[in-house]
Amino acid sequence: MNRNIPPTMKDVAREAGVALGTVSRVFNGFPVGEEYRERVEAAAEKLNYRVNNYARGLKINKTFCIGLLMPSLSHPFFATLIDELTACLMRRGYLTHVMITNFDPEAEQKCFTLIEQNKVDGIIALTYRPDIVVEANIPIVTIDRQINERIPCVSSDNFRGGQMAAEKLLDLGCKRLLFLRIGPTIQSEADRRGPGFESVCRSSGTDYECVVVNDKETEAPIYRYLEEHLHDGHFDYDGIFCNTDGLARRVCSYLEENGVRIPDDVQIIGYDGIIDFATGRYVCSSIVQPLRQMAECAVEQLLSPEHATDGTTFRLPVFYVPGGTTKDGPAAIGDDSVYNPFRSTE
Amino acid sequence: MNRNIPPTMKDVAREAGVALGTVSRVFNGFPVGEEYRERVEAAAEKLNYRVNNYARGLKINKTFCIGLLMPSLSHPFFATLIDELTACLMRRGYLTHVMITNFDPEAEQKCFTLIEQNKVDGIIALTYRPDIVVEANIPIVTIDRQINERIPCVSSDNFRGGQMAAEKLLDLGCKRLLFLRIGPTIQSEADRRGPGFESVCRSSGTDYECVVVNDKETEAPIYRYLEEHLHDGHFDYDGIFCNTDGLARRVCSYLEENGVRIPDDVQIIGYDGIIDFATGRYVCSSIVQPLRQMAECAVEQLLSPEHATDGTTFRLPVFYVPGGTTKDGPAAIGDDSVYNPFRSTE
Repeated sequence: MNRNIPPTMKDVAREAGVALGTVSRVFNGFPVGEEYRERVEAAAEKLNYRVNNYARGLKINKTFCIGLLMPSLSHPFFATLIDELTACLMRRGYLTHVMITNFDPEAEQKCFTLIEQNKVDGIIALTYRPDIVVEANIPIVTIDRQINERIPCVSSDNFRGGQMAAEKLLDLGCKRLLFLRIGPTIQSEADRRGPGFESVCRSSGTDYECVVVNDKETEAPIYRYLEEHLHDGHFDYDGIFCNTDGLARRVCSYLEENGVRIPDDVQIIGYDGIIDFATGRYVCSSIVQPLRQMAECAVEQLLSPEHATDGTTFRLPVFYVPGGTTKDGPAAIGDDSVYNPFRSTE
Repeated sequence: MNRNIPPTMKDVAREAGVALGTVSRVFNGFPVGEEYRERVEAAAEKLNYRVNNYARGLKINKTFCIGLLMPSLSHPFFATLIDELTACLMRRGYLTHVMITNFDPEAEQKCFTLIEQNKVDGIIALTYRPDIVVEANIPIVTIDRQINERIPCVSSDNFRGGQMAAEKLLDLGCKRLLFLRIGPTIQSEADRRGPGFESVCRSSGTDYECVVVNDKETEAPIYRYLEEHLHDGHFDYDGIFCNTDGLARRVCSYLEENGVRIPDDVQIIGYDGIIDFATGRYVCSSIVQPLRQMAECAVEQLLSPEHATDGTTFRLPVFYVPGGTTKDGPAAIGDDSVYNPFRSTE
């Protein structure tokens, strides 16, 4: 065989000792006996055969690309989610079209249109636009927000997370609990954190308050509330659950600047499970979203031949970690199964 | 016109009152008078005409996709770089294929191959594999590392950054300077930070030391060195330049845990310009990499018809910001031109 001519599927079939149709089935992702698949893959590797996905895409009407629509990478939650989704898709032979919308609803619609023009096989979207228009025949899975009743949604179990935060604060001896929420007005699964927290406060007869700010532009009402309840370094509540780790970190800073000791005077739990890029530790005590499992679930739902079209919401189990803002010890080390050269090894 | 039949390029030409060839030139990205371009775009929008990029890609042999090869999103430097590259490419009508390699050289080669199979128009890569094999006819730009003499590279001006760090520490009254470096063994533009730092120390006759650890697996030698030079809460050096903000943050923690006051006893400057996701402030005093300009430069080089093939390295100007680990004030607020709902507005 002349090595200057790229090998064809026929060459692979001859090398593997299988029928041409078997080679085609393997490369196009159709079911085939494991032994045949291995022989075809070994032959393809030996001959340095490269599948032309672009031509393949036209033939079987697949692109082997999945569009990922995300508001931003600058927040660690989104970046880690994309890391997990990309890794999960790559293991299945798919590329990702990551598109960043910068929280702009118009940009989101434009991205959907661009993605459709480019004929991806499916879309996984974390969208801030509830009225987004999508072509009916593209499989879609959303994260955290239901777009409509045809589209499955994957999220963490936000209600249970809110319950866990209240239970943990009570376990740690808190007597007066506060829930702080800041974020966009648009409905999402994350809205269930507050009700989960409240349900435990009510059933345990705990004194509590909820401050919910549905305004993505400013956190001023939160700080006004904190100020009103601060009296000479004493804060009216001894346990706070914030709806994100980011807010928890800012509330910590604000209270500490005003003479409140964290966690001695006030204990704080956030939500997300953000890990500090430099130290590899959780940035605060937190309810951790299982991002790897959420990515696996979203990809499974998207690629499954029985792709759900009934708007099922998959709510995955969360867990609690200490992160230095509660009395149960210093910040835990985050999941380091992903190699990070910037991580301290001491 | 029957609204149930998708509009064609002919419909757009008729609506815009221009020749069919003009419409084709606009949609295919060829030069055309600004007035004509606007009329065609207005007509396309009015008719809700959608370019089929996939068919278009075959016709003019372009996919309007750029492959972005990055080691990870979990580090804020990479996440922000991808944010900037994606935004920059979207403004030019390109989608991105973001591929995450998790620092695995084999995964990197596989990604290159996958990207080539999918026929992207170009690749922007931050690779840790110097011997990567790439098809000769795909335009490539690398970030921070030169692959070979045919491929242009974009980086920050690392040598000047090292000089700036030394100059700033001397300005702020430091007498004994230390440079700490941790990272992979592979050569990169980042290696110039140390020599830049040294050049200022030497020309100013300053007492200094450089500790360079070429081992991505462990930072233990750094901590051993710090321990040897710690005597009852006193550290032998009063100014430290770390080759990343991550290392600077870890060194700060280590020294503070051992009774050294930052910045009173020891001042520390990092490199990168990482902004804390929660507070929007720089995580330490730092030499800031101009990521937006680096993204613009990489995209310009990649898409330019005169795509450089002589391995030119573009070194873009850096700047210094105070970040609380030097005596010139508290941490500055980071660039907030990108809207961040998690940012505190107080």
